[in-house]
Amino acid sequence: MTVSPSANSLLYGLLGDDETARQFSAESEIAAMVGFERALAEAEAAEGVITKEAATAIAHALASFRPDFEALKAGVAQDGVVVPELVRQLRATVAAPHGGALHLGATSQDVIDTGLLLRLRPVCERITYLLSQLIDSLARLDESYGDRQMMGRTRMQAAIPITVADRLASWREPLLRHRDRLNELAGRLFVVQFGGAAGTLEKLGDKAGAVRSGLARRLGLGDAPQWHSQRDRLAEFCGVLSLVTGSLGKFGQDVALMAQDGTEIVLSGGGASSAMPHKQNPVAAEILVTLARFNATQLSGMHQALVHEQERSGAAWTLEWMILPQMAMATAASLRQAGILAARIERIGS
Amino acid sequence: MTVSPSANSLLYGLLGDDETARQFSAESEIAAMVGFERALAEAEAAEGVITKEAATAIAHALASFRPDFEALKAGVAQDGVVVPELVRQLRATVAAPHGGALHLGATSQDVIDTGLLLRLRPVCERITYLLSQLIDSLARLDESYGDRQMMGRTRMQAAIPITVADRLASWREPLLRHRDRLNELAGRLFVVQFGGAAGTLEKLGDKAGAVRSGLARRLGLGDAPQWHSQRDRLAEFCGVLSLVTGSLGKFGQDVALMAQDGTEIVLSGGGASSAMPHKQNPVAAEILVTLARFNATQLSGMHQALVHEQERSGAAWTLEWMILPQMAMATAASLRQAGILAARIERIGS
Amino acid sequence: MTVSPSANSLLYGLLGDDETARQFSAESEIAAMVGFERALAEAEAAEGVITKEAATAIAHALASFRPDFEALKAGVAQDGVVVPELVRQLRATVAAPHGGALHLGATSQDVIDTGLLLRLRPVCERITYLLSQLIDSLARLDESYGDRQMMGRTRMQAAIPITVADRLASWREPLLRHRDRLNELAGRLFVVQFGGAAGTLEKLGDKAGAVRSGLARRLGLGDAPQWHSQRDRLAEFCGVLSLVTGSLGKFGQDVALMAQDGTEIVLSGGGASSAMPHKQNPVAAEILVTLARFNATQLSGMHQALVHEQERSGAAWTLEWMILPQMAMATAASLRQAGILAARIERIGS
Amino acid sequence: MTVSPSANSLLYGLLGDDETARQFSAESEIAAMVGFERALAEAEAAEGVITKEAATAIAHALASFRPDFEALKAGVAQDGVVVPELVRQLRATVAAPHGGALHLGATSQDVIDTGLLLRLRPVCERITYLLSQLIDSLARLDESYGDRQMMGRTRMQAAIPITVADRLASWREPLLRHRDRLNELAGRLFVVQFGGAAGTLEKLGDKAGAVRSGLARRLGLGDAPQWHSQRDRLAEFCGVLSLVTGSLGKFGQDVALMAQDGTEIVLSGGGASSAMPHKQNPVAAEILVTLARFNATQLSGMHQALVHEQERSGAAWTLEWMILPQMAMATAASLRQAGILAARIERIGS
Repeated sequence: MTVSPSANSLLYGLLGDDETARQFSAESEIAAMVGFERALAEAEAAEGVITKEAATAIAHALASFRPDFEALKAGVAQDGVVVPELVRQLRATVAAPHGGALHLGATSQDVIDTGLLLRLRPVCERITYLLSQLIDSLARLDESYGDRQMMGRTRMQAAIPITVADRLASWREPLLRHRDRLNELAGRLFVVQFGGAAGTLEKLGDKAGAVRSGLARRLGLGDAPQWHSQRDRLAEFCGVLSLVTGSLGKFGQDVALMAQDGTEIVLSGGGASSAMPHKQNPVAAEILVTLARFNATQLSGMHQALVHEQERSGAAWTLEWMILPQMAMATAASLRQAGILAARIERIGS
Repeated sequence: MTVSPSANSLLYGLLGDDETARQFSAESEIAAMVGFERALAEAEAAEGVITKEAATAIAHALASFRPDFEALKAGVAQDGVVVPELVRQLRATVAAPHGGALHLGATSQDVIDTGLLLRLRPVCERITYLLSQLIDSLARLDESYGDRQMMGRTRMQAAIPITVADRLASWREPLLRHRDRLNELAGRLFVVQFGGAAGTLEKLGDKAGAVRSGLARRLGLGDAPQWHSQRDRLAEFCGVLSLVTGSLGKFGQDVALMAQDGTEIVLSGGGASSAMPHKQNPVAAEILVTLARFNATQLSGMHQALVHEQERSGAAWTLEWMILPQMAMATAASLRQAGILAARIERIGS
Repeated sequence: MTVSPSANSLLYGLLGDDETARQFSAESEIAAMVGFERALAEAEAAEGVITKEAATAIAHALASFRPDFEALKAGVAQDGVVVPELVRQLRATVAAPHGGALHLGATSQDVIDTGLLLRLRPVCERITYLLSQLIDSLARLDESYGDRQMMGRTRMQAAIPITVADRLASWREPLLRHRDRLNELAGRLFVVQFGGAAGTLEKLGDKAGAVRSGLARRLGLGDAPQWHSQRDRLAEFCGVLSLVTGSLGKFGQDVALMAQDGTEIVLSGGGASSAMPHKQNPVAAEILVTLARFNATQLSGMHQALVHEQERSGAAWTLEWMILPQMAMATAASLRQAGILAARIERIGS
Repeated sequence: MTVSPSANSLLYGLLGDDETARQFSAESEIAAMVGFERALAEAEAAEGVITKEAATAIAHALASFRPDFEALKAGVAQDGVVVPELVRQLRATVAAPHGGALHLGATSQDVIDTGLLLRLRPVCERITYLLSQLIDSLARLDESYGDRQMMGRTRMQAAIPITVADRLASWREPLLRHRDRLNELAGRLFVVQFGGAAGTLEKLGDKAGAVRSGLARRLGLGDAPQWHSQRDRLAEFCGVLSLVTGSLGKFGQDVALMAQDGTEIVLSGGGASSAMPHKQNPVAAEILVTLARFNATQLSGMHQALVHEQERSGAAWTLEWMILPQMAMATAASLRQAGILAARIERIGS
């Protein structure tokens, strides 16, 4: 699930974010899946579904597991998901006769969806942190320049004077709501996915509920019935991501418009031109508009993926993998660029 | 703000909903705006901004106001918004010398955005009502058929047997969350927009806050600082609409797949073919997929409209007018068709 | 197929176009379908599939046919398509025993898709005409002001001086290409759809090819194998529509930016504000941006509808009906507004 | 311009294509830009804009140029484009006093846009090649199985029997049109971009036209006036990419539906399940649907980027960089997977 701006890209410094990129690396993805399998073995041992010895052997093997990435990539190309090959590799490292106790009762989707949430949690924390930093930066600008005057503009025409505080509020207030939204949805979003082959946990019999809640607790996630074909939580999360980048797009657009003649706002830094060395381009401001329009585009795909047929749609699920990591990266990059832009504002208003 | 499936359309019975259409009619739109102006006059009179006599004259005139729709349409074509011409018509009906007291301190956006929310409230109630009806219908199907077996299918291949209850849960559980989401956002969404020419209520001086809260209270909306260039609430609302239609799209897609060979589900009714009179097409099921993909498409436009430059973007604002009513209509139509479909399920599972 | 800005809408003057609206009215839709049935009867009579008497009786009946629109709407709500009820109404008007000769061998999709193309042809002509008018207007501006200087701006910053002719070329040249594109695709697009129940024209035996080519010739369309599940032609057409509105969006955005301080461009007319009577809003310029973003949004849905399963997808087909008419209307409206805007340019450059 | 599925991704084997990935690597991107600068120096020397000695020194230096990628990435993060830092690195390698003759009269956009087209040309050839291969594969299936019967299905219900040839035609015919479309647009698309700081080639005086045509000829591109703010060619190209993936999405969806019960089609290979070892998942078929919906989503962003303000929009341009490479990769991957799928069809029809 790592189809996203690569650290190798020339554009990474403009459109990437290290912490977010780390969560979407192949290494983090496998690590989260391995964490799922370890917690599952513990939860199943606690309920007597597998033996304590098996759980110990599994924990021991997983602690030193080194994936064969090339084989994993070949597995995905063949199976559409990484899990069959990953489970094969994992089981091969577990001391006999305990290999079969690993992944018992689970299916690919349990590992992948839960593994995704384990990585989305730090991504969500990162985004919340960057949001709070930006909210503070804008508050400081308000303290310094809020009382100054500037021209209010409606329909791209001068209207009547407003204060800088009025303009700053239009940038800052949505961010407060976005932070609230992330808090509100966290309880809904960060829940375990565990259902087995078709959602019924049929191999666990009457232990199914206890194993699932034990698994959730060990992973620090909420317990919830399987949701493998109910993708509303992920689409909702992406919706908030796009609200964030949309509001920052307004901030960027406004700054680029203010910077046109250099009187309403003074920015330090800015980008160079290869043809006109004197020019200072408001690159960070423009990128905020780019990322807003990017996420607004992508969100449509996440909502198309809600039409997830039957118990598991390979088509819709893979579409999420292509889009969600990019939206998260774009959001973190946008917040990062917005922070840079706010820090470059040397004066605003007159 | 009535660019949406018209009741004149041949497709209206398939893709429309009466109650929602009513709220987006030109008549309802004008009525909501007139309601805004009346409440504003009352709130301003209560604070001494205008005289009691003026408020009485305004209330009297508005009670019998009959808009000249052709002149309003010409006004929109000229001004991009209906309000300048509407205010002209309204003031002409108010007994002298009180015309100038109408719309005092307000601007087009106050009237249009607040007027929109006054109509979105019953739309939201309608959608919540239809959601609850459908949740109940699916619960009744669960009571009747939940224990039956059916084949669980993953990646469009038979996997292992599940119960009908398992499948029904995948249709019903997201709807419960959507209802919660609508409840959660209602407090955020249904707030007054009142800011004057550029958001500062500059004509109301130290009475601005009191007039705004009085206006909000009279309209049954929450009080909030002006949000004219902060469009996240509306995009968020549309996001939930698209989550609803997305989940119903999954329901429709599943039913269409189940209906393929006529053994997993038995439906009454269905659509006729002009070439094959014997055929029963699962029209309602297909329409749910259509409306899911439609709203998933539209949502992107609402998020593009978040990039709302300066104090008022005519470009971004008008884009909302083209999209939001259609998304609301599609959502109500989808819930209506889902209700029809649920009612046509005569047997499910075996 | 008339889910589009209604002439009843307050916004119609801003976002509509009469000639395009006429083609998407229920009356035009039915008229095109009736034209299909008449031409089909003639083509079938010419090949001896039905008798000359039947064709005459059909032509006679269709000439005075008055549809029962309420029954048609109810038919769509039930069947998902208008054709079963329309054929029922049509057959009832044909003198016995010839009713059964009407619609012989055809299916709903033949009537609807071919009927759509019969109406898209004048829409395409209208768009081409408006494109040519606008190209001429921009050429006239070039003659009047092309030699003047203005500031070239890159990344929203002043760069180096350019001539007005340079800027005008960036508006005009894409329009020339769009006109070429419309010409190029016309041969591909305007072909008959005729396949019968599942595309095989099974009821016409060895007369199938001759009837189809006779039908096409009578309707002034190209002859082509049935394409009922191959929707690329329509998506391609919508792509050109969105290219047109996108280029006009650039024109509008540029004009709105130039109009900011009133020196680079002088516009006559413009929209009034309800709060600031002195202000002249560049409404037409903004609307061009709106319509560009609208069509860019919609195009995604037309491409989603390419995934048209099996011999006929009710879901994907209905999605086209919701989107294509709106894109055509938005394009014609955009060209109309661009023409208004070009005519309002009183001076450009300095 | 390399924000696209990385070769490091676990998903690369499923969603990537080697040849396409190569063109979007940072190395290829820089190589194309270096090729631009070399050809420009030659063209300028031929017209006497720079000396022959300068052109020779430049050609000599560029032949052994090794970019400092970390510095390039830092340059992009600062300037929003790679060219200022790249030109700095390149000039530093050219023997004094000829460094200043490199990039003379050009700007970032000339290098980047022309460099993109130099890489899109082999991408377009790759896609055309894969299209032709697939067209042939489908023709072979037609030879083997075309006469067999299968059930035609409309609105997801059995309709009447058709032949396998009928179904195969619905997969193959759009591909023929797509190949034509790629041919048609090649002449429009593959033209040089060369305009200098703001499009006027102001530093080249009356040599501007000759240098531009010499540059185009040396690069094997067509000559055309600068089009830096006219992005219709790129959006049109992406439109055809999405038409291709959309048609392949129909092929994939049809195969997945046919594979449901294993009688209409027999596939070899297929993907494994971690929970159900017996299951054969039609992974390639599903991925075709994924990639169709992905490109349909992305295309909207390319059309949003048509609103490219003034002489250069950093915001709109960067949006293209985020989307276009992904669409090209998705298209090549889709054609590759479609080829795999066609080759796995062991029998079709009955």
